[in-house]
Amino acid sequence: MSSKPEVPRGFRDFPPEVMELRLKVINTVRNIFEINDFPPMDTPSIEYWETLAGKYGPEAENKLIWRFKDPFSEKEYALRYDLTVPLARYVASHPELQLPFKRHQISYVWRHEEPQRGRYREFLQADIDTVGSKFVESDAEIINTMSLVLEELGLDDFIVKINHRKILYIIFEKRLGSNVTSVLRAIDKLDKIGIDGVILELQKIGLDESSINWIINLISNRDSIDNLENIKKNLVEFDFSLEDPLNELIEFREFLAHRKHIVFDLSLVRGLDYYTGIIFEISLEKGSPGSIAGGGRYDNLIKMFKGSDLPATGGSLGIERIFDVLEERNITSKFKKKNKVFIITLNEDSYKYAWNFSYELRTRGIKTEIDLMRRNVDKQKKKGASENILFHVYIGKKEKEGRYITIVERDTGKRLELPYDKAIDYILIQLKER
Amino acid sequence: MSSKPEVPRGFRDFPPEVMELRLKVINTVRNIFEINDFPPMDTPSIEYWETLAGKYGPEAENKLIWRFKDPFSEKEYALRYDLTVPLARYVASHPELQLPFKRHQISYVWRHEEPQRGRYREFLQADIDTVGSKFVESDAEIINTMSLVLEELGLDDFIVKINHRKILYIIFEKRLGSNVTSVLRAIDKLDKIGIDGVILELQKIGLDESSINWIINLISNRDSIDNLENIKKNLVEFDFSLEDPLNELIEFREFLAHRKHIVFDLSLVRGLDYYTGIIFEISLEKGSPGSIAGGGRYDNLIKMFKGSDLPATGGSLGIERIFDVLEERNITSKFKKKNKVFIITLNEDSYKYAWNFSYELRTRGIKTEIDLMRRNVDKQKKKGASENILFHVYIGKKEKEGRYITIVERDTGKRLELPYDKAIDYILIQLKER
Repeated sequence: MSSKPEVPRGFRDFPPEVMELRLKVINTVRNIFEINDFPPMDTPSIEYWETLAGKYGPEAENKLIWRFKDPFSEKEYALRYDLTVPLARYVASHPELQLPFKRHQISYVWRHEEPQRGRYREFLQADIDTVGSKFVESDAEIINTMSLVLEELGLDDFIVKINHRKILYIIFEKRLGSNVTSVLRAIDKLDKIGIDGVILELQKIGLDESSINWIINLISNRDSIDNLENIKKNLVEFDFSLEDPLNELIEFREFLAHRKHIVFDLSLVRGLDYYTGIIFEISLEKGSPGSIAGGGRYDNLIKMFKGSDLPATGGSLGIERIFDVLEERNITSKFKKKNKVFIITLNEDSYKYAWNFSYELRTRGIKTEIDLMRRNVDKQKKKGASENILFHVYIGKKEKEGRYITIVERDTGKRLELPYDKAIDYILIQLKER
Repeated sequence: MSSKPEVPRGFRDFPPEVMELRLKVINTVRNIFEINDFPPMDTPSIEYWETLAGKYGPEAENKLIWRFKDPFSEKEYALRYDLTVPLARYVASHPELQLPFKRHQISYVWRHEEPQRGRYREFLQADIDTVGSKFVESDAEIINTMSLVLEELGLDDFIVKINHRKILYIIFEKRLGSNVTSVLRAIDKLDKIGIDGVILELQKIGLDESSINWIINLISNRDSIDNLENIKKNLVEFDFSLEDPLNELIEFREFLAHRKHIVFDLSLVRGLDYYTGIIFEISLEKGSPGSIAGGGRYDNLIKMFKGSDLPATGGSLGIERIFDVLEERNITSKFKKKNKVFIITLNEDSYKYAWNFSYELRTRGIKTEIDLMRRNVDKQKKKGASENILFHVYIGKKEKEGRYITIVERDTGKRLELPYDKAIDYILIQLKER
């Protein structure tokens, strides 16, 4: 009769102690997005298959998208795979939208990956995008906003790598003639497989040693963005058409805040095919490698739905990764404030009095816990040891008869006896001051 | 090449102006839940089919649950259908949990309904539940919390109907002998089909006129909860075993706040099979009928997973319905505060100065919009007429050269010229005071 219940493989329950932290981080991120003029939006968890088809490449399409048939209509659906294609679908089908259309979205996406540490089949994405502006300040605004989020979360050791999609294309086309896509794909793996791995990949493609050395030398260019003028001078000598993207980068730089965190990195490719201009990737200096945010300009994606061009730029914050890093670094404490009152009833007779007091606190917005199991004092005290509790309130016969309240501050042990109404005011003031 | 993009039928996009309101309502609800000691939790959007099977009755199982096969493993999955069964699954598989286990959950659920006004295939549920306490104060806490939520949202005209599952069972078993379930099912439709509809249904079951009159008379009992003692006296005369559930209701009453909103209503059945004790339903007096929240005690559900009893009680808030009512009543304005600064650049030369000022405001947490299209002043002003804007900031040559800022309060037209730093402080203070 009783079936063994299990959470599906690759999926997670978030019990209260985890979910509280997640919500605080989500709200922090959301708040910074809103301050930077990216208001919230949401799209359905489910899209028609035809909306996603042809957008993410063969691996996603054949393996990673959760795709299924409606048993009643034979209509094909898929679970949301990212937040960018639904945005493109929305913008393309709403020609009345005022441009630029800016929004943030923090929603779940689903991928049919083999579950492993830090990789789940359902996870949150947090995206900001600006549709309709071709100007570099809209690219800069994405990066400035991501930087403000990381600062607000206490992750100050971030490095933003920037590049321009067109630079490597132009260079490789001139130097190699063919093979450009395979070479870019090899370089894109740098973070995963290291420089030796990239060399191996380039050998496989069939490049000669001098070409390989030349490429490795080229992509080892990581330079301060203050040097963009010099870089430009060198590159334009190689090919004149490199002037445009480099001018764009130089103009873009003027709108960037946090400039000391930002480097120009020719090895930055970003896998996704749809990028067309300035691209970026953010990682942390300390701790495990890999990017924590990334994005760029994709002026052609919306055309796939709409038939006409609409410039767009955006970025995605790896919010699941951020939860992990905050835990690793033990800086979750700033999100775990003591803000709760725990009521201990000393005898049965005073239970109704204590209940009313707890209700009174709650109507004033004070988070309050009271025993629901009619347990004895020792057991209540044991329960009241949990970490977010600021005050213990003791209510017994004496308190009930005298209409007062005994309050003990948990950290200091400081004990106060206050009349009923004064007790509420006292707690309110104490909570506000922290 | 361009496919016609569509949002799937029965699903919704939430553009920023809608999503902003939804988030504010969600956060208000969440906050009251937390204050009342129901911390947040989340479960996966997807469950194994076997977890949901046999829990919701044949209609849900055959028609309403979004059920699908994993193409790679033949494993059967289903989209979350409600928040109660996942909670039961979680509790049953975590025997280490401290009791009572309390949580709230605000998450999407999916139902394969025929889409119609106010009914969608993906919608939010907002639940609170307490697992592990058999005491009536845990039932009362659910209703008190729901009432506080409605008050906080400005929906003061709520009526809570309460009943006890066992009362009607005991009465009908004694009077009718058989047919109890069909009679209850007929009564459950009262809100939808009216009293005449219920009479018709009872005739179909084959009851004689005197039984039908007797039933209609019985369920027309809607009485103040202050009269529970009288009701008890009458009913216990009819059958002595009615004393227990009525005593339970009387004890429960002592823990209820908002008592003037609460009535005892013998016609309240609540369709779901799993309820075992006190049940409730909340509706609004004004506007369209139908319930806005409901719930009750379900002491047997967790046993379906665990094999042993675990008492539980909970409630669900119809949060989609609440969004609609708030719009209908035009009380969304309390959630739409003016809190944004809009920057108007008077000429190209001062754009960088304006950009820096906007960034400065954002680092101070002030929601700020600046043009990303390099538009002329008239077009900027047109855009700056949107409703949440509190201040227009004008920045031109004069402002740049004198390092000051011109601020215009949108409501009053009040105009101020302030030095750069003072301008930021002024805006901060004005925002705090509203």
